Amino acid sequence: MANGFDPDSSPDLSPEATDLLRRRSQVLSSSYRLFYSEPVDVVCGQGSHLFDAAGNDYLDVYNNVPGIGHSHPRVTEYVSAQLATLNTHTRYLTEAVVSYSEDLLATFPTALDRITYACSGSEAIDLAVRLARFATGHRGVIVTANAYHGTTELSAGLSPSLGENNPLGPDVVTVEAPDGFRDDPATASAEFAARIRTAAEDLEERGIGLAAVLVDSVLSSDGVQPEPAGFLAEAATVAHEFGGLWIADEVQPGFGRTGTMWGFERHTGTRGDTQPGPELPGLEAPIPDIAVLGKPMGNGMPISAVVTRAELGEEFGRRVRYFNTFGGNPVSIAAARAVLEVVREEDLPGHASTTGAALAQGLSDLAQDFFLLGQVRQAGLFLGVEVVDPEAPRAADPARASAVVNGLRDRRVLISASGPHANVLKIRPPLVFGAADTDRFLTSLADTLASLRA
Amino acid sequence: MANGFDPDSSPDLSPEATDLLRRRSQVLSSSYRLFYSEPVDVVCGQGSHLFDAAGNDYLDVYNNVPGIGHSHPRVTEYVSAQLATLNTHTRYLTEAVVSYSEDLLATFPTALDRITYACSGSEAIDLAVRLARFATGHRGVIVTANAYHGTTELSAGLSPSLGENNPLGPDVVTVEAPDGFRDDPATASAEFAARIRTAAEDLEERGIGLAAVLVDSVLSSDGVQPEPAGFLAEAATVAHEFGGLWIADEVQPGFGRTGTMWGFERHTGTRGDTQPGPELPGLEAPIPDIAVLGKPMGNGMPISAVVTRAELGEEFGRRVRYFNTFGGNPVSIAAARAVLEVVREEDLPGHASTTGAALAQGLSDLAQDFFLLGQVRQAGLFLGVEVVDPEAPRAADPARASAVVNGLRDRRVLISASGPHANVLKIRPPLVFGAADTDRFLTSLADTLASLRA
Repeated sequence: MANGFDPDSSPDLSPEATDLLRRRSQVLSSSYRLFYSEPVDVVCGQGSHLFDAAGNDYLDVYNNVPGIGHSHPRVTEYVSAQLATLNTHTRYLTEAVVSYSEDLLATFPTALDRITYACSGSEAIDLAVRLARFATGHRGVIVTANAYHGTTELSAGLSPSLGENNPLGPDVVTVEAPDGFRDDPATASAEFAARIRTAAEDLEERGIGLAAVLVDSVLSSDGVQPEPAGFLAEAATVAHEFGGLWIADEVQPGFGRTGTMWGFERHTGTRGDTQPGPELPGLEAPIPDIAVLGKPMGNGMPISAVVTRAELGEEFGRRVRYFNTFGGNPVSIAAARAVLEVVREEDLPGHASTTGAALAQGLSDLAQDFFLLGQVRQAGLFLGVEVVDPEAPRAADPARASAVVNGLRDRRVLISASGPHANVLKIRPPLVFGAADTDRFLTSLADTLASLRA
Repeated sequence: MANGFDPDSSPDLSPEATDLLRRRSQVLSSSYRLFYSEPVDVVCGQGSHLFDAAGNDYLDVYNNVPGIGHSHPRVTEYVSAQLATLNTHTRYLTEAVVSYSEDLLATFPTALDRITYACSGSEAIDLAVRLARFATGHRGVIVTANAYHGTTELSAGLSPSLGENNPLGPDVVTVEAPDGFRDDPATASAEFAARIRTAAEDLEERGIGLAAVLVDSVLSSDGVQPEPAGFLAEAATVAHEFGGLWIADEVQPGFGRTGTMWGFERHTGTRGDTQPGPELPGLEAPIPDIAVLGKPMGNGMPISAVVTRAELGEEFGRRVRYFNTFGGNPVSIAAARAVLEVVREEDLPGHASTTGAALAQGLSDLAQDFFLLGQVRQAGLFLGVEVVDPEAPRAADPARASAVVNGLRDRRVLISASGPHANVLKIRPPLVFGAADTDRFLTSLADTLASLRA
């Protein structure tokens, strides 16, 4: 994991935090990792800020779950009211889940008209791939070479970024992701589609067939790769040729982060944020066949969803079934309703677009002075910055990236790193990130970079 | 699914409920099922009661998620306070997750000393089986013939109760569950262990090896089979002989339902509810190697956990990793803390024991009069009643069971049916089920049975 705490180190922590670290290691499994050379102990959050026990204010430029801001009062209000009233499952009739579903579907192209709820992105990806395999009768799934799609056995098997000890699933093949820094932008899209084609042909020749191309709508663990916009539509067209589906992993980009309600809209040109999309036909149209939603959906309350066309899921629902005890429970739905309302009322896609552009401009300005910043990539409030060896401008430099991340952490600014070489700064704050936050971030980064040069 | 609503029927519902039913079918996927010939629309819950929009009071004798009662004020209080303060993931240091973990582990035998959190029972089962396979180097998993363990691809593949269109996973084998009604109680335990042995030998001969025996601590979908107490310890001993693990699925029986804090305690004689257990050695001791917790853990807030020995999970954690964004988030932990406190303060295991015994006695009394009640099985507030053809006393009668379930629903008493023949009444109320609730249930059941005889 990029940016992990080394438990064998001796961080300079308060006695309380040191004690907590010790107790933690005695109850939580060894799977658990902490962030940063010096872990952060947080006790409360507000907007895009986190606070430790001493009252220190950390600027959160990392967390994409609390999209509408930490501790948003409307989430608290709706969830509390629902918890005090009713929390049960979907085998009784309840209004809340139906009306929320209607509102959520209205933000998608009309063809995407049915929802299934689950608890986590992993569960939703797992279900989406089962659906795709059942609907197509094929088994093969194509993912990008450093993809991350989840932690169930099936979704971990679709996540090469988890490393060599995490085996890929049977019938899962990888293709190199576009690389906005090193590819020729004029041909990157066609080349990505060609790699999909080769992989699909290979699956066909092996008698496996293509069930789905599963891709983040902004490639995240591949190093934050939003460009060239449109490349997913081109890839999807190839998938459809082979009878496969396009599964859009919107777990990170969804709910406004990329400047549109859904990340796939940057690729398809389909409609924006809060309005119903145009009527579109089935497989031929370059819109996703399945969209998978998660992280920011409930601002941290566990909820995720699979959105697809009625006919695509019909046989599966009838013959295989799917019931998720907590999936679509009215309390998680209450949180999701609060999120959807705030995203619309505050036009967070628009805000992400504006603020993200300002951040990108500030970062590009810094890159003029600091040659270890190799390239700035941005779609809304999803930004990646290549950290390179200043002497070898396209050579990934994970050590310097780590120094930047931890230098910012020392200045109480939280980001992380990503990408196959762990050298891409991952800048992905809550969507309510404001102008003052942008200034503080850029100032702290300039200070960090200056200190690294000194 | 036993006891499902037939969408092609025309139930006698209010105009509002009919409209909601129509809207629901236009947004939720075809996987969704409703309970009962006439679905119930619920708007609020309190203790062991649910209420519809007209204010009708339904007695909840079915739901095992709200163990401490529907809409429990302490859950609302703790969750609201935490939501207004902080909700984030486990890569920062947070006190709440550590102190809850300490308290939860204190209810287990000392050897079970590490926790990993997830969102749902399915995710936790999925992780438990991955852990078992990694730790043993074997692939085979033995489950009971009508088991249900979850909805991810891996856990659905361990769930033969999902039916013939849901394929079992590779290297998953089934054994017949004990049948408290038809087996000889003197030999049932040894016969179950012998079936495990045969399956394990088969896995070994095929070069697959035994990774785990995965069993509900009270067999639920196999028809509510709690007896003979001890049979799981005997089965586990066989598993250990073959180098496999015992994974105790506590998703349903855990947190006091069976009269002890954990369902496996009925089988192992290990310690009770709130005290640390004895120091026990590793694989040889007949305690579970892995316990999987879920449903009632957060009274409906999505949270689940895998509890195991530190050394068993260590290599997996170091080499494979596991991170679950929502797993162990402080808001779900706040709900879990409320549950654990109430379970202890109100001695809900003890209450389940007493109330369950009273229910079992009342049911046995009814069985004297109504010959369609074939056998009453009970462990705490987990009860199963065989519904049989009165003319052929051991012949499962799913039609009569369905008539009883729907007759009770007409009297606003909610139960369901279970088992390979869907003929076992599943009686499994919130643990706060009281004496008046017991009376009302038994009276309504007597009335239903009388009307069916009429």
